[in-house]
Amino acid sequence: MRTEPPRKTGSVSLVGAGPGDPELLTIKAVRALQAADVILYDDLVSNEVLDLARRKAKRMLVGKKGHGPSCKQADINALMVKLALQGRNVVRLKGGDPLIFGRASEEMEACRMAGIPASIIPGISAAQGAAASLGLSLTERRIARRLQYLTGHGEDGRLPRDINWPAIADPLATTVVYMPRHTLAEFVAGALANGLASGTPAAAIVNATRTDERIIDATIATLPAALAAAAPSGATLVMIGAILRHRKAADVIQGSRKDETIRFLSGHDKILLKIPLKTEAA
Amino acid sequence: MRTEPPRKTGSVSLVGAGPGDPELLTIKAVRALQAADVILYDDLVSNEVLDLARRKAKRMLVGKKGHGPSCKQADINALMVKLALQGRNVVRLKGGDPLIFGRASEEMEACRMAGIPASIIPGISAAQGAAASLGLSLTERRIARRLQYLTGHGEDGRLPRDINWPAIADPLATTVVYMPRHTLAEFVAGALANGLASGTPAAAIVNATRTDERIIDATIATLPAALAAAAPSGATLVMIGAILRHRKAADVIQGSRKDETIRFLSGHDKILLKIPLKTEAA
Repeated sequence: MRTEPPRKTGSVSLVGAGPGDPELLTIKAVRALQAADVILYDDLVSNEVLDLARRKAKRMLVGKKGHGPSCKQADINALMVKLALQGRNVVRLKGGDPLIFGRASEEMEACRMAGIPASIIPGISAAQGAAASLGLSLTERRIARRLQYLTGHGEDGRLPRDINWPAIADPLATTVVYMPRHTLAEFVAGALANGLASGTPAAAIVNATRTDERIIDATIATLPAALAAAAPSGATLVMIGAILRHRKAADVIQGSRKDETIRFLSGHDKILLKIPLKTEAA
Repeated sequence: MRTEPPRKTGSVSLVGAGPGDPELLTIKAVRALQAADVILYDDLVSNEVLDLARRKAKRMLVGKKGHGPSCKQADINALMVKLALQGRNVVRLKGGDPLIFGRASEEMEACRMAGIPASIIPGISAAQGAAASLGLSLTERRIARRLQYLTGHGEDGRLPRDINWPAIADPLATTVVYMPRHTLAEFVAGALANGLASGTPAAAIVNATRTDERIIDATIATLPAALAAAAPSGATLVMIGAILRHRKAADVIQGSRKDETIRFLSGHDKILLKIPLKTEAA
């Protein structure tokens, strides 16, 4: 005998905001933002992305900076669950792809424990955005047949102690280190000690795909000093591997790429996507 | 003294079509499709994605099946360059992300040699789409701190001979094998011989994010036989790692995920994205 009226069930959607450029959101992500009651967002999410959300949606910054202390993940989980239990459609909006160093497992598990329907909408990860900006592929069938992502920032904020060094020292891999800043020197020392050639090309990409994107070119041996000297602010990742040898040629392309993008925004006969864009307003 | 009129310059854009669900295209990819004169597409690209393109754009299938003979990459490059030199905006549309096992390097190089402006618009890779469908993260800070993608299909169509086995045998990594079908048994034998535990969870995901998505759950040791027995048709990838232990719980979520997606499509006050969608037509 049910006497209570059926309770409206809320939901949680973990949504990838992509690397920064709001045009790199998926259609599905935009729809989720348009259907949200509440958006819990990380500080890596750009304002341009938040501008795509439903006007009435409540926006709440919950992110800690990438390198902060061990975090209030439990608080984020609790808030997310509480809002969903109140019947809200909660979007948990994360920079890049929530599936790649985004704590999606922990948040999905919290929803599961609370019986809340949860879904994942993947996003373009920072490595993909950075490579596209550089005009480079992440794989190449002769020189880069394996692509690996790892985090420089373990649970305690330090370099994870059980890194698989043979994997890192492999000259046939492209390696991308997320959140590399505080641990890069130690990482590089380990890679070199395990046989990665010191002349292996490496680059740091800051604020990939944003208007203030910045690229620091170096070798694996010189990158820690180059990054420390540049001391850039913003989300940073490090890319390592032979694929970066194409970088000089890619520079030439870079200019045209940008013209091209602008042409895509203005040159066709009708604008099908009615999404506010800085480029259109300009 | 210039006597010739300025020649209209064409362009090439390498565009990621995502894993199949047309809603997983980026806004930028849709814009490129809307601005294209010609679209050269792979056979992994779904019809629903092609439907997003400008009506007047010429669509040309150039892909070879993932496991075909060593390919007509040179022919694709030549066609792409020829069309761009005629002044066309060419979109080279690839399943997943062109940057990940998509031959983007070779096509960018061909454009560079011909002096054609070329750009890359990244896409959601199949691994990301598959993980989202499974309700699983690709990384987890305790059990999966490294994520690696590799191809099971070397230049000669066989398993690459210089696989870094310590990287593959690492119990703290999530491994995704693209184009695994013909070489999976050999790959698994190598992984086991190099110390990967035979009980490591593994799954094959066929047509990830499409309506006919199919998942084959197994362990690394049993997957080759399971996949051979199922003999599925369609784009297949293999995912290996401890993260798949969350899969049973994720199954419960799966149903709600789909309801949720439908709600996103119909439940909000205005449809901002005027893109034809099967779900809307239904």
